[in-house]
Amino acid sequence: MSDELLIRETLGSVVRLTMNAPARLNSLSDAMLAELKTAFTALAADRSARVVILRGAGKAFCAGHDLKEMQAAREGDDKGAAYFADLFARCAQVMQMIPALPQPVIAEAHGIATAAGCQLVASCDMAVAAEGTRFGVNGVNIGLFCSTPMVALTRNVPRKVAFEMLTTGEFIDAARAREVGLVNRVVPHEALEAETLRLAETVAAKLTAAVRIGKRAFYDQAGLSLAEAYDHAGRVMVDNMLWRDTDEGIAAFLEKRKPDWA
Amino acid sequence: MSDELLIRETLGSVVRLTMNAPARLNSLSDAMLAELKTAFTALAADRSARVVILRGAGKAFCAGHDLKEMQAAREGDDKGAAYFADLFARCAQVMQMIPALPQPVIAEAHGIATAAGCQLVASCDMAVAAEGTRFGVNGVNIGLFCSTPMVALTRNVPRKVAFEMLTTGEFIDAARAREVGLVNRVVPHEALEAETLRLAETVAAKLTAAVRIGKRAFYDQAGLSLAEAYDHAGRVMVDNMLWRDTDEGIAAFLEKRKPDWA
Amino acid sequence: MSDELLIRETLGSVVRLTMNAPARLNSLSDAMLAELKTAFTALAADRSARVVILRGAGKAFCAGHDLKEMQAAREGDDKGAAYFADLFARCAQVMQMIPALPQPVIAEAHGIATAAGCQLVASCDMAVAAEGTRFGVNGVNIGLFCSTPMVALTRNVPRKVAFEMLTTGEFIDAARAREVGLVNRVVPHEALEAETLRLAETVAAKLTAAVRIGKRAFYDQAGLSLAEAYDHAGRVMVDNMLWRDTDEGIAAFLEKRKPDWA
Repeated sequence: MSDELLIRETLGSVVRLTMNAPARLNSLSDAMLAELKTAFTALAADRSARVVILRGAGKAFCAGHDLKEMQAAREGDDKGAAYFADLFARCAQVMQMIPALPQPVIAEAHGIATAAGCQLVASCDMAVAAEGTRFGVNGVNIGLFCSTPMVALTRNVPRKVAFEMLTTGEFIDAARAREVGLVNRVVPHEALEAETLRLAETVAAKLTAAVRIGKRAFYDQAGLSLAEAYDHAGRVMVDNMLWRDTDEGIAAFLEKRKPDWA
Repeated sequence: MSDELLIRETLGSVVRLTMNAPARLNSLSDAMLAELKTAFTALAADRSARVVILRGAGKAFCAGHDLKEMQAAREGDDKGAAYFADLFARCAQVMQMIPALPQPVIAEAHGIATAAGCQLVASCDMAVAAEGTRFGVNGVNIGLFCSTPMVALTRNVPRKVAFEMLTTGEFIDAARAREVGLVNRVVPHEALEAETLRLAETVAAKLTAAVRIGKRAFYDQAGLSLAEAYDHAGRVMVDNMLWRDTDEGIAAFLEKRKPDWA
Repeated sequence: MSDELLIRETLGSVVRLTMNAPARLNSLSDAMLAELKTAFTALAADRSARVVILRGAGKAFCAGHDLKEMQAAREGDDKGAAYFADLFARCAQVMQMIPALPQPVIAEAHGIATAAGCQLVASCDMAVAAEGTRFGVNGVNIGLFCSTPMVALTRNVPRKVAFEMLTTGEFIDAARAREVGLVNRVVPHEALEAETLRLAETVAAKLTAAVRIGKRAFYDQAGLSLAEAYDHAGRVMVDNMLWRDTDEGIAAFLEKRKPDWA
């Protein structure tokens, strides 16, 4: 395999990013965060990439922050205060780039997804997990409450489930993760790559512009009142109706044929 | 059966509305939306109707908008822009009338409930589904992202579940719909009518005024902070306590007898 | 057992509160609410208590308000209006003290948890239930819609589930309560006390300060936008990183030894 820290593959219209620091369980080191930011920045301007898959090389999806690197920062005069503030800001920025990307992003999770690694799964638009994958926000076990992972987690799962995970540090398995809304699908480990790609290709086969305006509207309307959300979504839908490709898509459906999309 | 587009039946204190355009899978045509608006407007002022059931005649609950009618609107000078804006506004208005009605509204779903048909289920206060019913927001398949159905759907089900349905266009079955919160109960098809009516009658047997102020408070408090929500709900509850019928209801309970409600 | 209305036990660093009015199903009488307020006020300033368990003596967890006491208040000139306003304000205050406490609070539920008793479970940060426990917001059965219990319930479970419980007055069992997010764990009745204590001790064994800032941040960030929530949580996490005990916790983890926490 490549020795790049973040491997980027183009599989048709799907871009697959593989965090590739298996010896460190793909921890979100400064370098990894920088790679993810660079990759997401490029994707934001990429018209050919329709769907993104994010996964990890080796035994785990991602085990969170790089604790050794964080401890090293304590050597500074301020005991690391400036570094930590910058680190969490950079990490939160990367996490928030995911819902802001024009492409749907699917986490392909296996092994463990812990702390900021669990946050990464929660931040993705969808997630597929291998059976046996374990999810946790277990920073509390070492005295570092998973406050920023909590932001993403609590926007995925019921309140009491999140509270238990955060304060006990205990893991949930893939089946429970699906039950509570953290992942969409659970498949045998040997089927993980193919199933995630299949899901990605299903979405990639849709009219790209429709998926893009849909994803944006999805998050834009989430925090609005019902009336405001309908006003917003209604405008998006009128615009959508006026596209040539949508006209063609509906016409093709009514004529029981495949749409002729560019 | 009747040839009315929307059949209204009075079953004791339950009003049952049946969308009756089976050949078009009860699509939300201009005429159907107008019928629903008229029916809901009448119900808003109806003191005798305690609970409303909404269902569809024929093979399906509702397959969403009337695509033929929408395509025909493209003939206009503005390529349909004004019509589409008006259509989505009228549709959103009808959807928002449901939580605003004084009566609980129960969707009785069977066959398929897709796009705006799925939105209709999500907009109802409760839903009962026949085994085998399939739910989808599948506009993305024809290049028209289900942006307005998304508003209702995302207020019912977990984030990643909604995202998957919207971007894959794939259906979920009734059992999964119950698991994720889109429907309350799943029953064999042959029991659907009776079970939905039984649920409606259970609610209709309660003190009407209590159900009405409760439904209103339910949606009023949903978007408020915890403190604001308690302030609001507390005022509602004091008012409720001061009714003669509530005095009687509590007294009857304490005396282990049936309440004597008007 | 004690004849105190609210029994307070100290089990290591866990404080267990037992509502002790079994003949009245531990109803939230004026006296019980006062006891809970006093206990919570003391806990808010208690540095040694790390986790709180709340349970009920006798056959039930809690059956809600004391209806006899409420009916007696109708004798007043204002037919009880001032009393009811004060009662619901006191009750809402007690409920809101739970998420505001520095310690995680675990409901240990058995028998029934109805109306304000169900609200108490919903207001706790976590809940363990005995198999067979039934949960309901059944005030509607006596003409008193559970408007204030609704505030807590709707912040725990999906919308349609809450609506059904509130308008039908029907109970859900412990398994369904876990499925919908109202409780975390369901255990055989004979294991309830031990399992709840085990969960409490798991959390109590964590670094206390981390759990405390985590619980506060949990509720503080819940209503914020994604960007605001990350700003807030990031600041909490930087502060957390600068504690000596967190430095020690991370160092111990990296050195594969137990942390030496004060």
